[in-house]
Amino acid sequence: MVFKELIATEYKTIQDEICKALELADGGSKFEEELWEREGGGGGRTRVFQNGNVMEKGGVNFSSVYGKLPDSVRKAFKVDSEDFFATGVSIVIHPKNPFVPIIHMNIRYFEMDEQTRWFGGGIDLTPHYVIDTDVRFFHHLLKKTCNKFSPDFYPQFKKQADDYFFIKHREETRGVGGIFYDRLKPENTGLSFDDIFKFSLEVGRTFAPIYTELIDRNREQPFTEVEQEWQSVRRSRYAEFNLVYDSGTKFGLETNGRIESILMSLPPMAKWIYNFQPKENSPEAYTNSKLIKGINWV
Amino acid sequence: MVFKELIATEYKTIQDEICKALELADGGSKFEEELWEREGGGGGRTRVFQNGNVMEKGGVNFSSVYGKLPDSVRKAFKVDSEDFFATGVSIVIHPKNPFVPIIHMNIRYFEMDEQTRWFGGGIDLTPHYVIDTDVRFFHHLLKKTCNKFSPDFYPQFKKQADDYFFIKHREETRGVGGIFYDRLKPENTGLSFDDIFKFSLEVGRTFAPIYTELIDRNREQPFTEVEQEWQSVRRSRYAEFNLVYDSGTKFGLETNGRIESILMSLPPMAKWIYNFQPKENSPEAYTNSKLIKGINWV
Repeated sequence: MVFKELIATEYKTIQDEICKALELADGGSKFEEELWEREGGGGGRTRVFQNGNVMEKGGVNFSSVYGKLPDSVRKAFKVDSEDFFATGVSIVIHPKNPFVPIIHMNIRYFEMDEQTRWFGGGIDLTPHYVIDTDVRFFHHLLKKTCNKFSPDFYPQFKKQADDYFFIKHREETRGVGGIFYDRLKPENTGLSFDDIFKFSLEVGRTFAPIYTELIDRNREQPFTEVEQEWQSVRRSRYAEFNLVYDSGTKFGLETNGRIESILMSLPPMAKWIYNFQPKENSPEAYTNSKLIKGINWV
Repeated sequence: MVFKELIATEYKTIQDEICKALELADGGSKFEEELWEREGGGGGRTRVFQNGNVMEKGGVNFSSVYGKLPDSVRKAFKVDSEDFFATGVSIVIHPKNPFVPIIHMNIRYFEMDEQTRWFGGGIDLTPHYVIDTDVRFFHHLLKKTCNKFSPDFYPQFKKQADDYFFIKHREETRGVGGIFYDRLKPENTGLSFDDIFKFSLEVGRTFAPIYTELIDRNREQPFTEVEQEWQSVRRSRYAEFNLVYDSGTKFGLETNGRIESILMSLPPMAKWIYNFQPKENSPEAYTNSKLIKGINWV
């Protein structure tokens, strides 16, 4: 099998595994699947989850698309080639309970020709309420996955997540970071493409153990209307980041991607309350104090 | 008084007049004012309204700022000058009742030097439910205001509103348009700067009679949860437009404007429901059918 087809096949398997694990953890609803085709070439399997026991809205999407790159993207990528192939799995989960965090994962492979190809991806966490033990657990598992491949990966990709998931106009991070990597290839990793591919799969397989554990820890936590309102405010920041800064979203909108699949990352409900300020010494203020770059969680 | 100071003074008066008219129409709450200063120069009067009888959230903002233009904006504007002065009144109102439309107004003046200065602005309407008689009334009054200055204005600015308030990735307009104009100066209007200034004030003074009438027509209309949910969906489209496309928002975010004033345009609450489709022949489907460019409402 050609390398890129192998990647797409394995990514599909990862999508299947994660959907199964999430349905089992939620126990209340099932993913609905929509198959779609892209006009310029390729397509995908969008799987959306709504109104479960734990997950209010979530998507676990696989896509594998190819065709001609729009000029705007070629310029942004600084490449000459016109043809592209891209495959990936992309996840965002918005839970009901404000004490269960929002999570995002993406693994992807992009190829223009033999010389111009790379892996990208990452996992990052956006708690409505920062619970230190949960965040440490999260970063610990990410570090463990990274260390199987290179001791440089975790510190490097952790910093990149801090820098990437940053809401510039608010001067705050989207959440507590995680790992984010892009354009991984033999030249900048010392690993073969096969090994980078294995790393990519390992990241994909770190998602379910992390998130099902965080669900189990917090799903039964009772919450008030005040806490739910805070959740809605944090969700509006999530929407701001995705619509203003996220390059995956921009790429999707500019390459005529499937809108409902691209914007499935947006929260089921969000509130913009004018000049909302948490009370001093409140858990909400504590969370805000942790929405900064450079915190060492492991 | 220097021309630009005169403009700022008159714009402030317009802000006062509109706030008074809106408070009277709402009858339930008052605007809260915040004065702010911009680090690079100037400042503004943010006036925000929350939880009234009619208006759920609204802002009527005045600002008058000056300083050095960031490189990104200079490139976008294709100008060499470094200094700028900008003043304007900007309004967005999100009503409680889904049958009362969202409305937006902006009047502004921008100056770099004697040669490089212009007026911009407009009023546009975003009904959650398109009610033909209301939309015709709205466009009729805009046309009347335009015709006092030039028979070319309404057709030209109506088209520009259709083109500007367009959510490209959804292939739908944000609402039913209105008027939108930019870079108005003697060279492209045949009017003196004084007359363009008068037009700008006239647009500002068309706002209150239009919106208070639309409030009065629809404020007592009973509504269901289904209609309220549809309102939340339309509001999420409003948020998409403002965060992805609106140049006022972009300019504000890039010039270190006051975030809460810039993003006051965002809805108090919005919902992103996966793949939401209105029922055939429903009022929601009718509204969608009118979210296209080029409808003649007068």
